[in-house]
Amino acid sequence: MPRYQVAVIGLGPCGISTAIYLKRYGHDVVLIGLENTSLNKAHLIENYYGILSISGTDLFQMGIKQAKNLEIPIYKDEVLAIEYQNDDEFLIKTNNNEITATKVVLALGSAKREFPLAKKFEGNGVSYCATCDGFLYRKKRVGILGSSLYMKHEYEVLKNIIPNLTIFTNNEKLAFEVSNPVVSDKIVALKGDEYLEGIVTENGEYPLDGLFVAMGSQNAFTLAMHLGLALDSMSIVVDEHYQTNIKGIYAGGDCIKGLHQVIKAASDGAIIALEISKELKK
Amino acid sequence: MPRYQVAVIGLGPCGISTAIYLKRYGHDVVLIGLENTSLNKAHLIENYYGILSISGTDLFQMGIKQAKNLEIPIYKDEVLAIEYQNDDEFLIKTNNNEITATKVVLALGSAKREFPLAKKFEGNGVSYCATCDGFLYRKKRVGILGSSLYMKHEYEVLKNIIPNLTIFTNNEKLAFEVSNPVVSDKIVALKGDEYLEGIVTENGEYPLDGLFVAMGSQNAFTLAMHLGLALDSMSIVVDEHYQTNIKGIYAGGDCIKGLHQVIKAASDGAIIALEISKELKK
Repeated sequence: MPRYQVAVIGLGPCGISTAIYLKRYGHDVVLIGLENTSLNKAHLIENYYGILSISGTDLFQMGIKQAKNLEIPIYKDEVLAIEYQNDDEFLIKTNNNEITATKVVLALGSAKREFPLAKKFEGNGVSYCATCDGFLYRKKRVGILGSSLYMKHEYEVLKNIIPNLTIFTNNEKLAFEVSNPVVSDKIVALKGDEYLEGIVTENGEYPLDGLFVAMGSQNAFTLAMHLGLALDSMSIVVDEHYQTNIKGIYAGGDCIKGLHQVIKAASDGAIIALEISKELKK
Repeated sequence: MPRYQVAVIGLGPCGISTAIYLKRYGHDVVLIGLENTSLNKAHLIENYYGILSISGTDLFQMGIKQAKNLEIPIYKDEVLAIEYQNDDEFLIKTNNNEITATKVVLALGSAKREFPLAKKFEGNGVSYCATCDGFLYRKKRVGILGSSLYMKHEYEVLKNIIPNLTIFTNNEKLAFEVSNPVVSDKIVALKGDEYLEGIVTENGEYPLDGLFVAMGSQNAFTLAMHLGLALDSMSIVVDEHYQTNIKGIYAGGDCIKGLHQVIKAASDGAIIALEISKELKK
């Protein structure tokens, strides 16, 4: 199993900058993440010190090139879970690999990937974490929303504990085979006053007591919830050293509070690298 | 007299980034400073996110170009003093201009411009601030060390209160005319046990009770001292909004504590701009 001092999750400005600085401080670092970052989708950036004008994709690709020039390994995988091991090590499970590291940096960008229709019912029937809340719904009528590999990870947690489980893909193609019923219609509404009562699709109505939202890929918010990290609305809480409430796990860039700009994210990375380097040299 | 909402002192990454963001937030901003920043002297930068490799001079010039593209006025002046006016306005005196602004940003870089020989006697006969300490030495034998326009500003404060005042240029050419004695020999030592007792040059010895160090151009440290800003060793103290202990004066980059790197300085600038913009919109 590949083993590194530091695993940086996220290929955007915070992740790459962290990795560049750590490598230059002499540490063994790995980058893991998908290329679907918000930077990669940004149109034109004209307020970044040192660069007159650049597309988000070009800046993103330049970051990847900088990491490659320094021979930093990059796994272009989807991170499905991070688990605490004994002896101060974390296990990072991706769709293709299992990697261990002493320190983990969450540079996964903004957590703005919630399902707007579900917002009203968060904590009242809607959950983002199968591991956290699955057991509470074991005797209920439950839906799980999503279609990706990340959803598969959540589904596998739920299918063993919840007999009455329906998959909703909201008009997307399911990335894997399942044994439970699948509703692939587009969702038009969630029903209920205070508590969730059901899902309305274009073609029908499905009474539910609980819905697990597992849309898109794993993001900072859902990873943080699975790890038990302290959150403040949709941001991960960090101390003045950019460390979360779990020792050894750091976070920076758009997944923490503060200015959400490329320059700030890249600066966070440089500071995180210094903080981690100090810890590793102790 | 030119009047702006915000005056940014310093043309390095923090200053330029502050100005870029402020301008794009719709504010009236001016840049003031010399081109002798530490960035302009840096050899090669290879850890800046988004740029593979660039010389300090090229990065510095790119910053100037970004400001010019946004039509931000740039005064390539030496700032000699910043004075608090009534009605929440500051007056910035340079060697060529007087400019007023509601908010001032100090982005003057590292304060590492002290005179090493004088370090031992700081507070014990050596001062960096004529306005602060001149009166204490009014009946003493006093030297002033320097040759620049900034030194002239300090000299003009001292010459009226200290009759026994000698100018030491340490082998540099004096930039202006003076009526006091001038010693232009190279300084080889400062004498004294606990307290300063005199200066030793290549060609003689000069007994002194006090020495005002005013070398090079004005920098963050000396500006801060004149303004009465809170300092922690050689850094300006700022709060979580990057504001100093004087309301309306902000500081960022290498003149505050923290990581002294281009990326951090540029990020500080972006955050300061947001903080100031919020204040101006109140």
